Amino acid sequence: MADVAVIIGSDSDKEIMKKTLDMLEKFHISYEFTICSAHRMPQHTIQYAKTAKERGIKVIIAGAGGAAHLAGVIAANTTLPVISVPLANPPFNGLDALLSSVQMPSGVPVATVSVGDAGAKNAAILAAQILSLNDKELSIALEKFKERMEKEGKVIG
Amino acid sequence: MADVAVIIGSDSDKEIMKKTLDMLEKFHISYEFTICSAHRMPQHTIQYAKTAKERGIKVIIAGAGGAAHLAGVIAANTTLPVISVPLANPPFNGLDALLSSVQMPSGVPVATVSVGDAGAKNAAILAAQILSLNDKELSIALEKFKERMEKEGKVIG
Amino acid sequence: MADVAVIIGSDSDKEIMKKTLDMLEKFHISYEFTICSAHRMPQHTIQYAKTAKERGIKVIIAGAGGAAHLAGVIAANTTLPVISVPLANPPFNGLDALLSSVQMPSGVPVATVSVGDAGAKNAAILAAQILSLNDKELSIALEKFKERMEKEGKVIG
Amino acid sequence: MADVAVIIGSDSDKEIMKKTLDMLEKFHISYEFTICSAHRMPQHTIQYAKTAKERGIKVIIAGAGGAAHLAGVIAANTTLPVISVPLANPPFNGLDALLSSVQMPSGVPVATVSVGDAGAKNAAILAAQILSLNDKELSIALEKFKERMEKEGKVIG
Amino acid sequence: MADVAVIIGSDSDKEIMKKTLDMLEKFHISYEFTICSAHRMPQHTIQYAKTAKERGIKVIIAGAGGAAHLAGVIAANTTLPVISVPLANPPFNGLDALLSSVQMPSGVPVATVSVGDAGAKNAAILAAQILSLNDKELSIALEKFKERMEKEGKVIG
Amino acid sequence: MADVAVIIGSDSDKEIMKKTLDMLEKFHISYEFTICSAHRMPQHTIQYAKTAKERGIKVIIAGAGGAAHLAGVIAANTTLPVISVPLANPPFNGLDALLSSVQMPSGVPVATVSVGDAGAKNAAILAAQILSLNDKELSIALEKFKERMEKEGKVIG
Amino acid sequence: MADVAVIIGSDSDKEIMKKTLDMLEKFHISYEFTICSAHRMPQHTIQYAKTAKERGIKVIIAGAGGAAHLAGVIAANTTLPVISVPLANPPFNGLDALLSSVQMPSGVPVATVSVGDAGAKNAAILAAQILSLNDKELSIALEKFKERMEKEGKVIG
Amino acid sequence: MADVAVIIGSDSDKEIMKKTLDMLEKFHISYEFTICSAHRMPQHTIQYAKTAKERGIKVIIAGAGGAAHLAGVIAANTTLPVISVPLANPPFNGLDALLSSVQMPSGVPVATVSVGDAGAKNAAILAAQILSLNDKELSIALEKFKERMEKEGKVIG
Repeated sequence: MADVAVIIGSDSDKEIMKKTLDMLEKFHISYEFTICSAHRMPQHTIQYAKTAKERGIKVIIAGAGGAAHLAGVIAANTTLPVISVPLANPPFNGLDALLSSVQMPSGVPVATVSVGDAGAKNAAILAAQILSLNDKELSIALEKFKERMEKEGKVIG
Repeated sequence: MADVAVIIGSDSDKEIMKKTLDMLEKFHISYEFTICSAHRMPQHTIQYAKTAKERGIKVIIAGAGGAAHLAGVIAANTTLPVISVPLANPPFNGLDALLSSVQMPSGVPVATVSVGDAGAKNAAILAAQILSLNDKELSIALEKFKERMEKEGKVIG
Repeated sequence: MADVAVIIGSDSDKEIMKKTLDMLEKFHISYEFTICSAHRMPQHTIQYAKTAKERGIKVIIAGAGGAAHLAGVIAANTTLPVISVPLANPPFNGLDALLSSVQMPSGVPVATVSVGDAGAKNAAILAAQILSLNDKELSIALEKFKERMEKEGKVIG
Repeated sequence: MADVAVIIGSDSDKEIMKKTLDMLEKFHISYEFTICSAHRMPQHTIQYAKTAKERGIKVIIAGAGGAAHLAGVIAANTTLPVISVPLANPPFNGLDALLSSVQMPSGVPVATVSVGDAGAKNAAILAAQILSLNDKELSIALEKFKERMEKEGKVIG
Repeated sequence: MADVAVIIGSDSDKEIMKKTLDMLEKFHISYEFTICSAHRMPQHTIQYAKTAKERGIKVIIAGAGGAAHLAGVIAANTTLPVISVPLANPPFNGLDALLSSVQMPSGVPVATVSVGDAGAKNAAILAAQILSLNDKELSIALEKFKERMEKEGKVIG
Repeated sequence: MADVAVIIGSDSDKEIMKKTLDMLEKFHISYEFTICSAHRMPQHTIQYAKTAKERGIKVIIAGAGGAAHLAGVIAANTTLPVISVPLANPPFNGLDALLSSVQMPSGVPVATVSVGDAGAKNAAILAAQILSLNDKELSIALEKFKERMEKEGKVIG
Repeated sequence: MADVAVIIGSDSDKEIMKKTLDMLEKFHISYEFTICSAHRMPQHTIQYAKTAKERGIKVIIAGAGGAAHLAGVIAANTTLPVISVPLANPPFNGLDALLSSVQMPSGVPVATVSVGDAGAKNAAILAAQILSLNDKELSIALEKFKERMEKEGKVIG
Repeated sequence: MADVAVIIGSDSDKEIMKKTLDMLEKFHISYEFTICSAHRMPQHTIQYAKTAKERGIKVIIAGAGGAAHLAGVIAANTTLPVISVPLANPPFNGLDALLSSVQMPSGVPVATVSVGDAGAKNAAILAAQILSLNDKELSIALEKFKERMEKEGKVIG
């Protein structure tokens, strides 16, 4: 059973979201990885969101570009925290994905992180921070990660 | 039974979408008007979209602001033509709603019209144009409407 | 006699709008394809728009970049539904084409779809949706297309 | 017979373009003022543009907002210099009108001036500069105008 | 001892962040509310962030406008999840605050929610979602909140 | 003695403005071509502008990128019509150059054309249109140019 | 003899730049205040810039809106540090003034501060910081100012 | 002991900020060059800022991209003049870094220069201008630099 669900809307977004998976692994966080388009597989996506909590998922990370509705549709169908990674697709390099993710109406928050690469990594770290509230070991791992960044002057992984 | 379904995501969008209803009435087009938030009533919204065709609806018009997913979610769940009216809400005056509406991925088109007032009227006219392909009387009404605009130098209604 | 007219403003837009033609063919929709610049061939363009209806055209798709007036000029001269594909030309990657297409004044709607590639495909699908209102076979083809997308998790073609 | 044609697309743009007329009067330039929408009166607008030269018009000034095609459509139908005043209408405060005016394709220039008020005045001054190339008196008037601005530290009128 | 720390950079942001406090109260979440400018009280702000975890804080919510560094500076000094509410201050209505909040480099995530009012409410709901992972009662409260939104068609509070 | 002065602010802008020179030659318009930076050679630039009229120049075309002040500084120092070609330099692809060119205050118009390539050509055509008001031959050449564009469906040169 | 020259391009910018003068007075910095438009009084403006150094001026602050060339033109004509306050005028609320100020070419820096009110104050503080490098008393005043801000949690003045 | 401190937030920004160092060397200005991330090494960065003045530093130049908080965090912790070079990183090409740098609240100015390359050079020249207020030789060097630019029509170095 996984703690984090990472979902993407299209096969072409796989490579960038690999950075999320790598970072989750660095923190020894269990995850499942699914393609689940809000637009092309709406029923499946909603079902996925609706059952995530009972399946034991704690945080959902959604990566999508353009009119990026994926995180919003997920958030509409669960009370779990949902993180969006807006992808920097052409022609607008992610400005559309950023606004489509972040500008949710009151009542349905989406936690949006940086557009593109940095966001893919940061989504995993944010998930780790959330899980660490109830996981002493993970909490310490995050502190060590922060110390190492401070020492090495760059992000690890 | 209505030809056009007009839906909004929130009560506060009612006033502006009244312009859509007024214009539909001017063309004697039957419609139904529903509040149906993609984010706050996801299951209802999808059900609404999925059954629209069998209920005889021919065109769906969705008005929404911010991360405007309503038209996209509807379009994901029907093969009827879906028109989006991006609403010019603060703080971004509709730039977010425009990009969230128009930048749909391949496979799921949303017909986006002008942001705000002009769009609310134009959505109805576009619906009339679509319906007129199979309605001689409406086709003539649209031509007369165009002639009057040309004569009076302004939009009627 | 064609159901859909696909027009572009310049020879250099041919390649991208081929995706529209391919998608129309997938749905067995008849089309004509014309170069017809609003700026360099204004009289021809207007004549083309004015006679489209009587020639049996049902939907017009216009692809243009920059100050993309093509769809608007066509829409000003017909009561047929007009779809715009804003092209992602440099330097503004289609932001100019998007705003020039979508921000039409009341009275003259233009149905704008995604900027660039996705829009080229979606314009054809939107045309199919419009035509399907009066074409049972096409209506079923669209539903199958949607099912296949849901199954395969990607757009077909 | 007028030297300058000032046209607007809609009655609601009259007030701001009054500043153009006032400035033309200050320079004793004859003008005609017409409502002539590219979208609602396309045939009339094109006819107007096509006959402007033979009627003795030398410069055309077009004020329009939103998807501001007016100047472009005029420029497509005449070889006279065409000046665009992009109007600062909501919701995008003229960014749409600016891009729709200025981003013309090669072959059909539109001389775009400032968005809104300043542009309404400057269009008249630019017209005066153009006419002054063949009007010694106007040339001197422009120089005096410049000297007075320098002396008074503000635009006159 | 509070679960959530709500901080603002300046007294003038108090009113809007009251919506965050109200929503937290609705969910019976304990909070502390502090003015703590990254720019005018840097040492205090960092100290505040560094000690938050040991003081029992679980989630930090920062509201700031303009070059909104507050959430980022906090996130740089804690491993707790940090939520940013970008405020819609003039002249850029929050575009600056949004980009300054969300575009964090890899290694230091900030969970950004909607600009302005909706964000102020959503930050509290997101905090509730995070806390609910380890609080059965809160988890049920969130589900009821979602059900009521679906029933009433609007956000409660 | 030249009719048109083409100026650029930096050597690196030479290549693109060659398109202006080529188009001027196509219309047999005499020109001079000068490097003349508003920022690095201010005194020379102003002197150049101040003496242009008496040297017989009729139209000035300025190409510049970034904070493109060249056309504005020229326009501040002459009553000749001044045309700006905003160049599409990174990082903002000409949005900065466009706004810096077009947003002149009342009293000092700059006639701004398209950003980049199309603008370089259109500046020359606009200059031709201006000069043609007093040059019958040029007026006919412009009409033929327009006819050929209409016939060939593309810009010539 | 003044240490700081504060200049504006137009009378209408006086009120906002009063905040600059007030802040300079708070630090007991001598200043002169002049209207000096780059566009309407170019020769005067250049002369002003060229003689500033020999008149004992040490820092120049320029406030301007729209195509804000004032700071750039000043910087082109002096080797003194030049600070720009981009003013938030409609229709673009200072985005044009910001880009016109900050995007200077290599060789001619302009030190740009925040758009509008905050910038008007900050320009004075930046000038104080520059002057304090050679003025012990001012250096101490700045430190006290910083301490008071930290203590009071808001800017003083 | 160095007069200027040049700092960057990440190793990947080294190459572009080399242009700053080169220009400082051209003016024989002593400098120190440090990696010092506001986000990954917050305590170190603040300490660095707090001690800069007593170590004899006179001007601080910070280069950063994305949510560029570096200059702001430095400015919050010193009364020395702080110059920001917003870096043109993808996906937003420096628009985020520009707004994050320049839009500081009243009380804490950051002197922002051009985005990217030109800014890297201009930051050094601005530092030279500031230092020249108390260094006759540097003042003359800047004047000669300006003269050579005027003569050669391009920036040297």
